[in-house]
Amino acid sequence: MTSLRKQYKTAFMPESSAILFTPGPVQVPFGAKQVLARSFGHHRTASFESTVESVLQNLKPVFQTAGRVFVQATTGSGAMESAIINLLSPGEKVIVVDSGKFGERWAKMADTLGFTVKTIKVPWGQALAPSLLEQELKSHPDCRAVLTQVCETSTATLHPIEELARICHKLTDCLFMVDAITAVGAMNLPMDQWEIDVVVGASQKAFMLPTGLGFVALSERAWQLCKNSQSRRYYFDLLKEEEANQKGQTRFSSPVNLWCGLEWILERMLKFGLTNLFEQVSLYSKAVQLAAEPLGLKIYSQSPSPTVTALSLPDSMTAAEGKLLLKKLASHHHMTLAGGQDHLVGRILRVGHMGALTPNDHLRLVSAVGEELSVAGHDCDIPSALLAARSCLAPLEGKHAFGCES
Amino acid sequence: MTSLRKQYKTAFMPESSAILFTPGPVQVPFGAKQVLARSFGHHRTASFESTVESVLQNLKPVFQTAGRVFVQATTGSGAMESAIINLLSPGEKVIVVDSGKFGERWAKMADTLGFTVKTIKVPWGQALAPSLLEQELKSHPDCRAVLTQVCETSTATLHPIEELARICHKLTDCLFMVDAITAVGAMNLPMDQWEIDVVVGASQKAFMLPTGLGFVALSERAWQLCKNSQSRRYYFDLLKEEEANQKGQTRFSSPVNLWCGLEWILERMLKFGLTNLFEQVSLYSKAVQLAAEPLGLKIYSQSPSPTVTALSLPDSMTAAEGKLLLKKLASHHHMTLAGGQDHLVGRILRVGHMGALTPNDHLRLVSAVGEELSVAGHDCDIPSALLAARSCLAPLEGKHAFGCES
Repeated sequence: MTSLRKQYKTAFMPESSAILFTPGPVQVPFGAKQVLARSFGHHRTASFESTVESVLQNLKPVFQTAGRVFVQATTGSGAMESAIINLLSPGEKVIVVDSGKFGERWAKMADTLGFTVKTIKVPWGQALAPSLLEQELKSHPDCRAVLTQVCETSTATLHPIEELARICHKLTDCLFMVDAITAVGAMNLPMDQWEIDVVVGASQKAFMLPTGLGFVALSERAWQLCKNSQSRRYYFDLLKEEEANQKGQTRFSSPVNLWCGLEWILERMLKFGLTNLFEQVSLYSKAVQLAAEPLGLKIYSQSPSPTVTALSLPDSMTAAEGKLLLKKLASHHHMTLAGGQDHLVGRILRVGHMGALTPNDHLRLVSAVGEELSVAGHDCDIPSALLAARSCLAPLEGKHAFGCES
Repeated sequence: MTSLRKQYKTAFMPESSAILFTPGPVQVPFGAKQVLARSFGHHRTASFESTVESVLQNLKPVFQTAGRVFVQATTGSGAMESAIINLLSPGEKVIVVDSGKFGERWAKMADTLGFTVKTIKVPWGQALAPSLLEQELKSHPDCRAVLTQVCETSTATLHPIEELARICHKLTDCLFMVDAITAVGAMNLPMDQWEIDVVVGASQKAFMLPTGLGFVALSERAWQLCKNSQSRRYYFDLLKEEEANQKGQTRFSSPVNLWCGLEWILERMLKFGLTNLFEQVSLYSKAVQLAAEPLGLKIYSQSPSPTVTALSLPDSMTAAEGKLLLKKLASHHHMTLAGGQDHLVGRILRVGHMGALTPNDHLRLVSAVGEELSVAGHDCDIPSALLAARSCLAPLEGKHAFGCES
């Protein structure tokens, strides 16, 4: 066994080329890679203006809004910063839902940038109970905005966004702002219908591109409020960005290849149909959830997200063994998964469902996780796990997976 | 002639694939394109950590510093913002050299971000006279930093950086900060030797990659001063970035493909030798400068930069005709050049010398500009222009041009 494994290590492709089951960056579609590999033009050309116009137009239906969607050369965290400094003034009070690493980040960011932060701490793996938000809003009637993740990526937990938005608007005139980086484009999030004021996204998630573009979508109300923000901002200033966008341009130099990749994928997302896309992601996550029990794993979150699944490793496994499992999945099976963060290092596996992945990729993943758990001496019923996953994926049979069209 | 031209329009490659003679983005080397096209890994892997370490190490000699060079997912303008907010506190006074669009931008940015800005207005096309800086520093002894472009890209003008830095340090303990976006990596700029405190750069210039990475290099003194800045910053916070860099990581998600492209090109820049690289860029600019007169063009700047050349079009040409010339160079000759900005629209051509360009590319450019000027009825001595350019480029004969190795 050992010598076979040794062979594997050299025979297999390097870690950097492994298939990405991470919750971002994700597997890039072959067609997008081709566009990225040939789009090296200048950003002040008629050709690029047509790309900008197409992208800004097509982002609206994907964000399910009639409002403006801005694209800036930054990461998701940069877009989170852009959203709050464009809408809020220093000293203003915000309620931040902190249910994991990314909630913690938004709270810390808002505090650093001079806002008054009231945090709702939610235990990791749990969704925010709407009643808790109601209570917090009543305690802080001077609050100007509620900030929450749609999906807290570190725990793969989905918050009840529709209900939270409703409570927010029923009780206050607060802005309801969501970090939808691990959500928008991969699950139903009707921004206008649910009256979400701000939706933040990023290129390396449902948009299946490399990191480098951040998105900020604004409701008409939010857009009007941008004009009131006293936060100092230059690079992230959306009012100035809008002036450039009106001319079919971006304000600064643009990552032209990423924009062209975005143009390519948005057209295909709309053609494939958002409903079909959401179903694909949802079935992938359900398949992995159903495979968990036969593999001897538990679903970590009490409110699992369709975009990423966190699986608790067996209690009998040490954190070191948990980390080793991830390494083996990379070196033996050519699959990159995410582990846990902070106290969850070595305790959970996180499987993303957003990239250019097929049903078969997910079956291979189930099989690979089962194999490595078995080799490590854990009880695993691999055939049952595969059967459960396969049945779940049946509705996708005979269809092309999005991002994997031949 | 017209029907031949019509044929050209369809037979030639589209504008977006034209060869870039723009001063950024520039022509990307084929090898870098290959790296960009295959680097889609995750940013939290051992493989990416090795890329981060290699990049951070190799940026130092290219920036000619023993200090820290930071890489952030942003554009050059984002890096200009990062530099000032990491080093200065709101209300502090800065002297900004404004000799064109980018000086104007840095002044406006500093003002917007809450600094007290004293602008030295320099007529477009002229370099700052060191005596003017001396005078301004004496008038504002409370000034905390001097901000200047090395090369003002909008006018292709080089400032006397070594002398300006010397005066700055002789008279004050001000920080001397330069926007070297159209300079660093393409011309000699010995940061440590000239005691430049901060050097800002960007990926789409001498580094020959797409837009998306901004660089901020700090002297040891500047690094220590970061700890004192009271400017609110989260995304651009270099103190936090350093903590991640110490672990071979970046703080946020990274444009992995750009980092891998950067690793690739830095290794090659150092192997090719900075002196050779600077000579190549310098000879390209001299060749175009020498070709100007026979083509009936004038060198716009009184202090021409080696990285980009601005050529004044004949007085007899209208601005509309000047813009048409650029369009013809794109559609007939498959070459993208930059025009002028503001009052220089249609009045100048700007030719960048930083990308993966050969001596022959520059000869083709001279010939194409000459052809289009002739067709438009202007006196042009194309053979003399080519002869002058060719003689100038003779030292490069028989050598591989950097970025164009087969």
